[in-house]
Amino acid sequence: MDLRPAAVRVLLEHLERLPGVGPRTARSLAEHLLIADPAEVAGLAEALNRLHGRVRLCSVCSSLTEGDPCPICVDPERDHGTILVVEKPTTVWSVEDTRQYHGLYHALLGHLSPLHGVGPEDLTIDRLVERCRGDEITEVILATDPTVEGETTALYIARRLENLGVEISRPASGIPVGGEIAAADQLTLAKALQSRRKL
Amino acid sequence: MDLRPAAVRVLLEHLERLPGVGPRTARSLAEHLLIADPAEVAGLAEALNRLHGRVRLCSVCSSLTEGDPCPICVDPERDHGTILVVEKPTTVWSVEDTRQYHGLYHALLGHLSPLHGVGPEDLTIDRLVERCRGDEITEVILATDPTVEGETTALYIARRLENLGVEISRPASGIPVGGEIAAADQLTLAKALQSRRKL
Repeated sequence: MDLRPAAVRVLLEHLERLPGVGPRTARSLAEHLLIADPAEVAGLAEALNRLHGRVRLCSVCSSLTEGDPCPICVDPERDHGTILVVEKPTTVWSVEDTRQYHGLYHALLGHLSPLHGVGPEDLTIDRLVERCRGDEITEVILATDPTVEGETTALYIARRLENLGVEISRPASGIPVGGEIAAADQLTLAKALQSRRKL
Repeated sequence: MDLRPAAVRVLLEHLERLPGVGPRTARSLAEHLLIADPAEVAGLAEALNRLHGRVRLCSVCSSLTEGDPCPICVDPERDHGTILVVEKPTTVWSVEDTRQYHGLYHALLGHLSPLHGVGPEDLTIDRLVERCRGDEITEVILATDPTVEGETTALYIARRLENLGVEISRPASGIPVGGEIAAADQLTLAKALQSRRKL
C-alpha cells in the first residue's frame, strides 16, 4: 500500500513540478523537510508566500523589484545614457554581480519565437523603442542569449532602433574564461576565431 | 548593487539550505517560482506548512504517519509475525513500493555511530527488542544500509535479539539488477561472489 501520509504526497506532487526536480530529488527534499526544524520549514513557506505579494516588474525596465520604479531606474549615480537589454529579468542580477556595468537595464520578458507564437507585441520591445527616443540614450547593448532566438531578437530590435541615433552593440561570443579550446563546441570556436583580438 | 528584492533574497537563503541545492539551483528555482502561477506557489507553501502539523512518527514502529498507530501496524491483513527493520522511516515507502513484503516495519531513526555520539539509546532499539518478546514475532529482517554503520547496527541488534527465538536475516548484497559486473565496486563484487547462488 502507499504508506506516504497525504501531507507528504501533496508536498511530493508540488516538489516534482519544480524544474529539475524528479521523483528521487523530491523524495530526498521531502525527507529532509520532514526531519528539519519546523521553524525552518515554516520560514521557507513564508518566503514563498511573500514572493508574489512583494515582488513586481519595474514599470520602466521590467526588472524584478519591490518598489516601482526599481532602484536602478531611479539611481542618479547610474549612467542614464546606456541601456543593457536582457531576455529574463533575473539576468539583470548576473550582470550586476560582475560590477562592470553602470548603466540602465531593459528586460524583454522573453525572446521572439514565431514557432511558439511569441511576436514583438508579446515582449517589451515597444517600451524599449520609446525609451530610446529623445536624446538621453546613446548606447543600447543587446545582451539577448547567443541562441537562434536570441540572435533573431537582437537583429529585430537593432532594426527597430536603426534611425534613433543610438549606438547598438552585442556582448562578444567566445571561449569561456578558464575553458579549454578543445572543449568548445564548433560554433563557439568559429565565433571566437572570427572575433580574434590582436595582441 | 545587489538588485535582488528582499523577498527573493530570503527565499534564496532558504532554498540554499536544502540538500543538494547550491546557489545556481536555488536561483533557477527562484526564477521558476517568480514566473509560476501564484496559486501553485501558495500551494507549495501550504503543503510545507501542513507537513509538520500533520505527520508524526508511529508510536509502535516509528514510520511516518498521520494516524497513530500507522495503517500498517493496525492492518489485520499484514503478516504480524515479521518485522523489517530500516534506518530511516522513509525507507519503509521504498520497500512497500516493491509489493514484495507483507509484514510489519520498525524504523530505528538512524544507525549506531560512536564517532557522532549515536548510541543504542538514541535509536528505537529497546522498543524493537520489546516488540520481539512474546511469541508473535518469528522473523526480523535487518534492512539497515550495507555501510559500515549499517552493518555494525545490524550486528548489534542481532546480538540483542539472540535469545528471543526469532529468526534474523539481512537482505542480500550484490550487483544491482541491470548493472554491469565490471562497473561494480570491489566490495560489492566480492560480496556478490561470496553469496553466489547455484543455478
